[in-house]
Amino acid sequence: MLETLIHNGVIVTVDDAFSVLPRGALAIRDGGIVNVWMPAAGETLPQARETIDAGGALVMPGLVNAHTHLPMSLFRGMADDLALHQWLQERILPAEQAHITPKSVALGAELSCAEMVLGGVTTCCDGYFLVDHFAGAVARVGMRAILGQGVIDFPAPGVPDPTLNVTAAREVVGRWQSGTPLVQPAIFCHAPYTCSAATLQAGKAAADELGLLFQIHVAETRQEREDWMGRHGQSPIAYLDGLGVLDGRTLLVHAVWADAADVAIVARTGARVVHCPQSNMKLAGGVAPVPDYLAAGVTVALGTDGCASNNDLSMWGEMDSAAKLHKVHRGDPTVMDAATVVGMATVQGARALGLDHLIGSLTPGKRADLIVLKTAQPHLTPLYHPASHLVYAARAADVNHVMVDGRWIVRDQRLLTIDLDDLMDRANRFARKIAVSAPT
Amino acid sequence: MLETLIHNGVIVTVDDAFSVLPRGALAIRDGGIVNVWMPAAGETLPQARETIDAGGALVMPGLVNAHTHLPMSLFRGMADDLALHQWLQERILPAEQAHITPKSVALGAELSCAEMVLGGVTTCCDGYFLVDHFAGAVARVGMRAILGQGVIDFPAPGVPDPTLNVTAAREVVGRWQSGTPLVQPAIFCHAPYTCSAATLQAGKAAADELGLLFQIHVAETRQEREDWMGRHGQSPIAYLDGLGVLDGRTLLVHAVWADAADVAIVARTGARVVHCPQSNMKLAGGVAPVPDYLAAGVTVALGTDGCASNNDLSMWGEMDSAAKLHKVHRGDPTVMDAATVVGMATVQGARALGLDHLIGSLTPGKRADLIVLKTAQPHLTPLYHPASHLVYAARAADVNHVMVDGRWIVRDQRLLTIDLDDLMDRANRFARKIAVSAPT
Ligand SMILES: [Zn+2]
Ligand SMILES: [Zn+2]
Repeated sequence: MLETLIHNGVIVTVDDAFSVLPRGALAIRDGGIVNVWMPAAGETLPQARETIDAGGALVMPGLVNAHTHLPMSLFRGMADDLALHQWLQERILPAEQAHITPKSVALGAELSCAEMVLGGVTTCCDGYFLVDHFAGAVARVGMRAILGQGVIDFPAPGVPDPTLNVTAAREVVGRWQSGTPLVQPAIFCHAPYTCSAATLQAGKAAADELGLLFQIHVAETRQEREDWMGRHGQSPIAYLDGLGVLDGRTLLVHAVWADAADVAIVARTGARVVHCPQSNMKLAGGVAPVPDYLAAGVTVALGTDGCASNNDLSMWGEMDSAAKLHKVHRGDPTVMDAATVVGMATVQGARALGLDHLIGSLTPGKRADLIVLKTAQPHLTPLYHPASHLVYAARAADVNHVMVDGRWIVRDQRLLTIDLDDLMDRANRFARKIAVSAPT
Repeated sequence: MLETLIHNGVIVTVDDAFSVLPRGALAIRDGGIVNVWMPAAGETLPQARETIDAGGALVMPGLVNAHTHLPMSLFRGMADDLALHQWLQERILPAEQAHITPKSVALGAELSCAEMVLGGVTTCCDGYFLVDHFAGAVARVGMRAILGQGVIDFPAPGVPDPTLNVTAAREVVGRWQSGTPLVQPAIFCHAPYTCSAATLQAGKAAADELGLLFQIHVAETRQEREDWMGRHGQSPIAYLDGLGVLDGRTLLVHAVWADAADVAIVARTGARVVHCPQSNMKLAGGVAPVPDYLAAGVTVALGTDGCASNNDLSMWGEMDSAAKLHKVHRGDPTVMDAATVVGMATVQGARALGLDHLIGSLTPGKRADLIVLKTAQPHLTPLYHPASHLVYAARAADVNHVMVDGRWIVRDQRLLTIDLDDLMDRANRFARKIAVSAPT
């Protein structure tokens, strides 16, 4: 017997044809999607332990947030509207040094995951330190995640001796115990300017040997590119290519300052790009050449980046900004159409993380990671084109139900897996400590 | 006795000093604010007919949406990602010609107002045709509004003979019956390229004579500016100045393609600007020189523009985009700080509409137009700086209570004034008619 049957939904499958089933049905067994179809008039629907009449609501794949720093929700809104170096050197790094501990990363990660799943994100890809200390918190909330252990040539939380940074990352992976196959490790080298060539190559070698994703921030600011051209005579992306660390298991985060040669390198190597439009806007990083990446066949995912630079973890805001930013930047309202952007937040995100055999679209054979929106609201009325609403009108608070791997973790906007009030109380207590010690 | 007392709120007053009262109280009598203060520990609070413990939630002035086209919510998401001329000529204008009637404008306006008040907008400024046919709908929802009757040198809904366009606008004002002083008329000349010099001057003269606001779209696209320079040898803004239609009761909508000379003209004449960042982004109009306007002392309000080009009426999205767009456009993360943007969405909006003696800040002597947010949510936790949350993290769905002129129109996210389900049913039925007749 089926576990769950959802019917009478506007099902946005995000399959290859971007099929939308106006009164579709979706059947789930053993946590996987077994059928997605348009029932004929009068057709008897199959029996299931739980049958849900979606009442015409939009049903779609869970969103994939392909880049974030989970513990940083604790610093949300602590420092805005500052020059990048001031923001980082005077505010964020000191706050991290003073307040990031094995306990606080678990608190921040739990808070971030709660926010994300309530907003329809079913999978995230993180990069931070002490990731084994918050893998359990992520698992408890119930989402799917890849947690990249940070590698950097400076002392870092949990890694006081930077000469052991890659060794420490291997150890984190070796003792990995998230309690679920849904939460897996990865290697996250912070950036070319904070990791030596040897570190980058050792980090990538470790990732390859352990069969893991390799993530890196690159070409986020004009300054970074110019410094690189001056010092190495080549762009940051060309430099990474020269080190041999670019391939289909490499995730390039930001990749804003890329010229046509860089785009060609990314396309040739098969590396994937995570576009974080709101972070790039707020920190004034720049506008990534996303339409060029897409034209070159590069897989481009969307990410929120951390809460200290956004300041939320809503993929709806990222979709809206991604669609609009490139239009105004290129002076062309036809770029980044709604269906493309929905794809970036779902199936392209899954592909970027190497998870597209499991998730990213509502197609038989994939795991049941899906969301149901609360469509009967003024700002979503009337409904002509589902993709348009998803990008230009919907928002995190419209997510009504969330399923990960066949299990409901949000129903009627209520998080079922953890005690949300207690979590927010703990986060507020932590923040009062910071607020007391922060510069004003 | 007081009507309403709100206490234990984080009161963002948006007064001249941008004072925030962490556990503030606010007293209302006869629909006006009589006191806003920080009660001392143990202070006995005054008696009121209704006392509300805000429980630490954010309390702020209602938002001012300074530019929209209310009936166009009926076309929400009907046509996206198209070239501007195709969007306008092939989709929007035909839809308007076929479906805009005295009845449908009331339906669309009611839908827009419902969306806006649920999202914390307490005042809007509209420009459309047949405005006297939807003034009652706006009043019924309970918001404050200025409705600009459209003037254009083409046949328009309700004005088949364009030679009578200004006459028709005067007639609309003459028979004005919104049923409430909260909903007032204005004159809205569509744009310099659709109104002759004579029409613009007659429209402005009518506005002055009747004591009304004069609104106009101007310099929205690069094409418009270039055409104008070619045809008239001057910018659209300089042209309007030459016609004598710019003063403190003139609202310039968009004003994107403005150079330093144009900014100086706007500053000198005292004309006000409405910035619509999301519309300018989605239609690829361009990036208005908002930091320059502000530096020159120009009053700059925020607006959503109509639902056909955005596609929602959320001022939270506009605040977020306004703050982020200019940072990335200028390569400077310090421009458009959060407090400035909150001011644009509130007190600057009120000033732009000539309503700042009544609304825009929570200060004694003003009318009680205010909103209370639902702050205890993961994406608003923790709270370090209220303005930061309002711009970078809050969204329309976080609005819990809305008061206009001392009257609650939304409580616990429920609209008290109209039957929302019935309204959405009517909008959906209308949309099915359009969908049948629309090109695919
Ligand atoms: Zn990052
Ligand atoms: Zn407009």
